[in-house]
Amino acid sequence: MKFSILGAGSWGTAFAKLLVENGHEVLIWARREELADKINKYHANDDYLPNVRLPETLIASSDISSAVHFSDNLVIAVPTKYVDETMAKIERKPAVIVNLSKGIDEKLRTISSIVKSRWRDADYLVLSGPCHAVEVAKRLPTSVVIAGPNSITEAFQQAFSNDYFRVYVNDDVLGVEISGAVKNVIAIAAGILDGLGQWHNAKAALITRGLQEIARFGLSLGARSPLTFMGLAGMGDLIVTCTSPYSRNRYVGEMIGKGMALKDILSQMKMVAEGVYTVGPLLRMADSLHIDMPICRQVYDVLFRKKDPYQAISELMSRPLKMEIDLTQIGPESDL
Amino acid sequence: MKFSILGAGSWGTAFAKLLVENGHEVLIWARREELADKINKYHANDDYLPNVRLPETLIASSDISSAVHFSDNLVIAVPTKYVDETMAKIERKPAVIVNLSKGIDEKLRTISSIVKSRWRDADYLVLSGPCHAVEVAKRLPTSVVIAGPNSITEAFQQAFSNDYFRVYVNDDVLGVEISGAVKNVIAIAAGILDGLGQWHNAKAALITRGLQEIARFGLSLGARSPLTFMGLAGMGDLIVTCTSPYSRNRYVGEMIGKGMALKDILSQMKMVAEGVYTVGPLLRMADSLHIDMPICRQVYDVLFRKKDPYQAISELMSRPLKMEIDLTQIGPESDL
Repeated sequence: MKFSILGAGSWGTAFAKLLVENGHEVLIWARREELADKINKYHANDDYLPNVRLPETLIASSDISSAVHFSDNLVIAVPTKYVDETMAKIERKPAVIVNLSKGIDEKLRTISSIVKSRWRDADYLVLSGPCHAVEVAKRLPTSVVIAGPNSITEAFQQAFSNDYFRVYVNDDVLGVEISGAVKNVIAIAAGILDGLGQWHNAKAALITRGLQEIARFGLSLGARSPLTFMGLAGMGDLIVTCTSPYSRNRYVGEMIGKGMALKDILSQMKMVAEGVYTVGPLLRMADSLHIDMPICRQVYDVLFRKKDPYQAISELMSRPLKMEIDLTQIGPESDL
Repeated sequence: MKFSILGAGSWGTAFAKLLVENGHEVLIWARREELADKINKYHANDDYLPNVRLPETLIASSDISSAVHFSDNLVIAVPTKYVDETMAKIERKPAVIVNLSKGIDEKLRTISSIVKSRWRDADYLVLSGPCHAVEVAKRLPTSVVIAGPNSITEAFQQAFSNDYFRVYVNDDVLGVEISGAVKNVIAIAAGILDGLGQWHNAKAALITRGLQEIARFGLSLGARSPLTFMGLAGMGDLIVTCTSPYSRNRYVGEMIGKGMALKDILSQMKMVAEGVYTVGPLLRMADSLHIDMPICRQVYDVLFRKKDPYQAISELMSRPLKMEIDLTQIGPESDL
């Protein structure tokens, strides 16, 4: 098969390498001509994926038009906030769009709704799960999930899988997308706990209760099944984001927990911690839908209202006692 | 309220401390008279919970009869393999039994079935979740779940909760018990990965796919809801057991991953790693029910058949590609 990958960041590049290793023809589009040249000339992308040798047959280009004409299968691997403007540059509708990006844009749209607003009848697939790019590039075992129309997901599952990259099929596109967007906020909360100390009980409970919030939010927006959140895009990606030292969102939380100011943390970081920007819009959306998201709300207050993290934890622990799981109670009466 | 706690190990002792702090009258039974004396005299249990000061009003006894007559609320906190013989020593039926132990005995029975075989109509509650005893003893934030008859769970939820210990109610006793038993086997697998290297993608996927096995097994035995496994007793306890340095099962796996022989690891350990003994009976049970448990099977082969861990991972990664979640497909046709 042939694939055009839009975005030569760490994940776009690692995924391009994977696809070439699986025998596909791949063109990767980089916004900067200089980066495309480096990939073509040195078979490396040291800015985003240092010490990784890329296949010589991987072609890079900074011309989006030639990228889109290379293949009918378009892979989105640009940061969430650039997806809309990147799509705007594409003149012809692709047959299939495979999205690797995770997040919600500032207009509170998922990537699928951005894509569908432009090409209503394009086939849209989302690939998600615990997949740090650097580990995939090193061929370390990775399992992910792909969701999309039943008629084509299996073909792409086969095309992407190999002996170190295992793809499961799921049919809940929205559930998968919401999981990938909200997990970054929970990861900040997990990082805050890391900054305060080694609290294993609290951290495991936070991740678990955080997944309940993600599921409640996703189901109220129309996700198909609560079990999606128990899968690789939900629980799997949440675990890696809340525990891995690579996770930027977890890192922001950890520094907050250690007493640093948010603006100082952000000014030192090279890459974006999406959760910092997601949490505000997310809470506005949750409020309008009457969904209770206590952990996300405490994260917001700690980040932007200077609430003391110990006070935030104390408030979470002293909420009224309740049933553990009742995801059917959605709406104004929800009290999960 | 009054409580008799059977078992003065780390969790029984930390739970006794919690209950006294919540204003209850508590007697703790220790099998060894010497330990009971130490608790009464020094208000400490350094063997199992070092550097923790116990409340002076906590009474200890090595006489099980007086323990049982102290209160109608009996808390089980002895290791799984001693539950049956401890119950055999009790002459009169308690009104309420609260179980803190996690596991399946060598006859493949859950604690509830051991208890019910003796006192069919006693009220049985199980308390579970991510709760390392030492953290509870230090008053670090901990959230757990209690499952049992609807008529009484709320009263016990209230009795056990305080500002650092938060109890949620769940109505799926069997689901909670199965989660606590099977997680130890998955923790060995997670430890093996830790021993091989820092594989964050693989570990998150393993924990997630491990929970699918636990859920499939539990549902086939009669657990009430797949969502139980997404809660604190399932996912929450699994995360802490797979990631915490305190976890004995994870530790056994880590040493295996580093190339040590099982018998050498076990001979150096003071405490029991239940997963080593659970995995065999568990697989026999799974076979008889036609439930596919690929991760547990590889753990068994690595522990007892000298299979190379890399080979085990390779086999897990190369299984036929499939749908992510279909917990309804239980029985001989199951192919999750």
